[in-house]
Amino acid sequence: MSALYEPVEVEFVGPARAIPATRAPFTLIARNGATTLTVPGFWDGGRRYLARFLPETPGEWTWSTTSDATELSGRSGAVRVNGVRGSGPVRVASGFHFAHADGTPHRPVATTAYNWLHQRDAEMRATVEDIARAGFNRLRFMVFPQAGGYVTSVPDLMPFEQDEHGAWDVSRPVPAFFRRLDRAVEMLGDHGIQADILILNAYDNGRFGLAELSEEDDAAYARYLVARLSAYPNVWWSMCNEYDILDRPRERWDRLGQLVADVDPHDHLRSIHNLTELFDHNRPWITHASIQNGHATTDFGRAVLYRDVYRKPIVLDEIKYEGDIALRWGHLTAEELVDQFWIATVSGCYASHGESFERPDGSLHMVAGGRLQGRSPARLGFLRCILDGIDGPGLDPVDKWDDPEFVAGMPRHQYLRYFGRSAPAQWRFRLPQATASGDRLEPGDAFEVDIIDTWHMTVTPVGRRFVLDDVQRNEAFATAAEPVALPAGEAIALRIMRTAGGTEAGSR
Amino acid sequence: MSALYEPVEVEFVGPARAIPATRAPFTLIARNGATTLTVPGFWDGGRRYLARFLPETPGEWTWSTTSDATELSGRSGAVRVNGVRGSGPVRVASGFHFAHADGTPHRPVATTAYNWLHQRDAEMRATVEDIARAGFNRLRFMVFPQAGGYVTSVPDLMPFEQDEHGAWDVSRPVPAFFRRLDRAVEMLGDHGIQADILILNAYDNGRFGLAELSEEDDAAYARYLVARLSAYPNVWWSMCNEYDILDRPRERWDRLGQLVADVDPHDHLRSIHNLTELFDHNRPWITHASIQNGHATTDFGRAVLYRDVYRKPIVLDEIKYEGDIALRWGHLTAEELVDQFWIATVSGCYASHGESFERPDGSLHMVAGGRLQGRSPARLGFLRCILDGIDGPGLDPVDKWDDPEFVAGMPRHQYLRYFGRSAPAQWRFRLPQATASGDRLEPGDAFEVDIIDTWHMTVTPVGRRFVLDDVQRNEAFATAAEPVALPAGEAIALRIMRTAGGTEAGSR
Repeated sequence: MSALYEPVEVEFVGPARAIPATRAPFTLIARNGATTLTVPGFWDGGRRYLARFLPETPGEWTWSTTSDATELSGRSGAVRVNGVRGSGPVRVASGFHFAHADGTPHRPVATTAYNWLHQRDAEMRATVEDIARAGFNRLRFMVFPQAGGYVTSVPDLMPFEQDEHGAWDVSRPVPAFFRRLDRAVEMLGDHGIQADILILNAYDNGRFGLAELSEEDDAAYARYLVARLSAYPNVWWSMCNEYDILDRPRERWDRLGQLVADVDPHDHLRSIHNLTELFDHNRPWITHASIQNGHATTDFGRAVLYRDVYRKPIVLDEIKYEGDIALRWGHLTAEELVDQFWIATVSGCYASHGESFERPDGSLHMVAGGRLQGRSPARLGFLRCILDGIDGPGLDPVDKWDDPEFVAGMPRHQYLRYFGRSAPAQWRFRLPQATASGDRLEPGDAFEVDIIDTWHMTVTPVGRRFVLDDVQRNEAFATAAEPVALPAGEAIALRIMRTAGGTEAGSR
Repeated sequence: MSALYEPVEVEFVGPARAIPATRAPFTLIARNGATTLTVPGFWDGGRRYLARFLPETPGEWTWSTTSDATELSGRSGAVRVNGVRGSGPVRVASGFHFAHADGTPHRPVATTAYNWLHQRDAEMRATVEDIARAGFNRLRFMVFPQAGGYVTSVPDLMPFEQDEHGAWDVSRPVPAFFRRLDRAVEMLGDHGIQADILILNAYDNGRFGLAELSEEDDAAYARYLVARLSAYPNVWWSMCNEYDILDRPRERWDRLGQLVADVDPHDHLRSIHNLTELFDHNRPWITHASIQNGHATTDFGRAVLYRDVYRKPIVLDEIKYEGDIALRWGHLTAEELVDQFWIATVSGCYASHGESFERPDGSLHMVAGGRLQGRSPARLGFLRCILDGIDGPGLDPVDKWDDPEFVAGMPRHQYLRYFGRSAPAQWRFRLPQATASGDRLEPGDAFEVDIIDTWHMTVTPVGRRFVLDDVQRNEAFATAAEPVALPAGEAIALRIMRTAGGTEAGSR
């Protein structure tokens, strides 16, 4: 018995002499109705071999195995999937947004603790509880340990055994290391947090030697990782953070990404993140563009351009951090970071948080996790509430060609307008027309407006109806309505919802 | 005898029964040293067949022909190339910029007259003389006639004969039409203007039926066009203006672009231009991204993002027009349009001009050409002078990750800083550090500064040296220097040139 969106694990006893982890020891084919999953098995220490898969359809699942090893071949069984656990994996929805397998929208508000996996268990747990409380729903972290600035912990466990020369032997993964990773991903899932797993990292700096594996070794490791973790519903794959720090041809990254796409039976989200040189996010294996650029969200009208280019969800991972260190990426005020999230939102994009206040031990939250100190997390939790309240797939720029007010929304239904960090004293009702032909505003369309104070975290209905009486080619106005008084100088947004009107009554 | 960069034309008498123009009637192979050109021949009416090629290396060129038609096969000859005429075709240089074949940089400052080819000869010539006088060096125009708004002329000549049902027969091009096109391209070249040829257009609106040719017919026409025009040094190919207005799969445009790349012996620049949906400018046949977006150059920090994405020259073709029509793309003030050009410039991009004052006959300059009325052309000619004075391949954002002042230039050599339409009263000397490791500013580096008034078209040296005395990780200052007084409220740029200093004396 298992539930929908709950991993099914099947265990086997394999040959006495362990099969090298450079290839899948066996393959499990799982079937339910028209669905067939090709699931790579993996070695879990001693003679223990596992296969894991995630049922996304209910009913009877049957499975059978093939292998070169007789112990692992020709085995079969069945499992009944009944009930539901959670909403399933997150995938791309409506072009620029995300939704779980069951259709529930996912509005990513992520945070970052790169070296989280390499902290003590109690610290890992405390970090997760704290970020979940704040309202984050995705954590960006690395499998391999980090070296360099602000790293104060050295892990006990490493992912692979070493050969007689001290070189990493990827054919012998360390089961205890990967079981710990399993538990980490589960822990995140239990707290409603997506695990954005950075498969490789650019911060080894020669310390552990894990950035100098051969392409073949990287591939063996990636296969093992996918076999091991793909059945967890909350997995996202990122090939690397700041991939362009490493001196590798792009084609190598491309082959790694394509490999992950090919072997992952559950088709989890896949990305690759840059420092200064963008990857080509048009590559077919990339599901969403994970982009770093220091100025893309510090003002309106910028990040939105990436949408046109990639026609995929845009996630600004690393928009600098709230903190107090001297480096320019590490001393945003909370107000600045929150402002950038709202700009990303009305740009039809998503962003990630990180915190870089120097801790007493010399580390940073964005490295090791711990307790959040900043003032942005509460405001980002509030933003997530606003996003979760959106009735539709997500916010898109309504007139992306040229809207001086940068209104986002779903045309003729719901809109969000953000004034930046200093709102004017009043606002006259105006909406842009959609550039697409459908969903055009019409005279008589009526709207309600809520005033959102993005810093003080309040939502105040204006309490009046605004009826369009001047509808032009590119914009529409309610000229008869009194202007809306705003808290001048505050970081204010407006939520504008259609109530009725025009040729068609009611909201859709 | 011919000169370098001067087209060589070879004429043949072909069979009495014309060879259909749906295929190349013969191929001419031209050789000079290690260079071999495969040149498609073309029919020019009656029994006249031509092949044209452009020598880009001096000395003896030999040629020979192959054909299914005996009259056109096995012919051979030679031509001596001596002396030089002009600078040769423009191609991509230094990643984001352009240069002629002889290495002379080309700084594109284009204008637009879509239906120029379909005006009377005297009007065509007057248009060219006027835009050349203003300082434009590229004209965007269409081969097929335009229909729809603001089009007041109907052409006498059409490109193809019609069959008995009135359908266009691309196997029978009209020689007089294409000879006129030859002369048009020559006329532009004689005035130092690149011919940005829009092969197809989206403004036929069913009037002429030239937007409804089959893909096969489009291909035959494109082959004929390339065979005919490729030898002219000033040719640029654009597959279409606002391609996304036409209801065609992207793959069809992709095949057309690849075809042009395959058959063009001279590898001219190739692009495709959008209305709202960008093409994938990462496609290998595309040499530079020709982009329309209404807000990409109305503020800093936007268009620059396209550079990261495409790693090719970015040309903002259509940034709205200086004019007085009601549509929002057609009533920029000259000040607004000039401002956008300067923003494009410091974004490391290029832009195109167009004029849309309604003429007495109901047409617009951007449609039919004629005499420029606006106040922007003189300022754009001045900008071109500034660009032509740059000592290096072109201006690149110096710290593209996050420079709040958006300084462009060549690190530690020459810089351009633009303040937008309203300069402050003074400026304290500051430069960003390059993100790349080389060319870092050092204490003692000395600079001179010119104040450029982009509207009044003056260049005023400050007349003092600025010596760096505070060099930080991401920026550098001359703190001991008095601030530079600026004409507050004017549209001012600064040109900052290194004179000497640091570990290395002199400018590079």
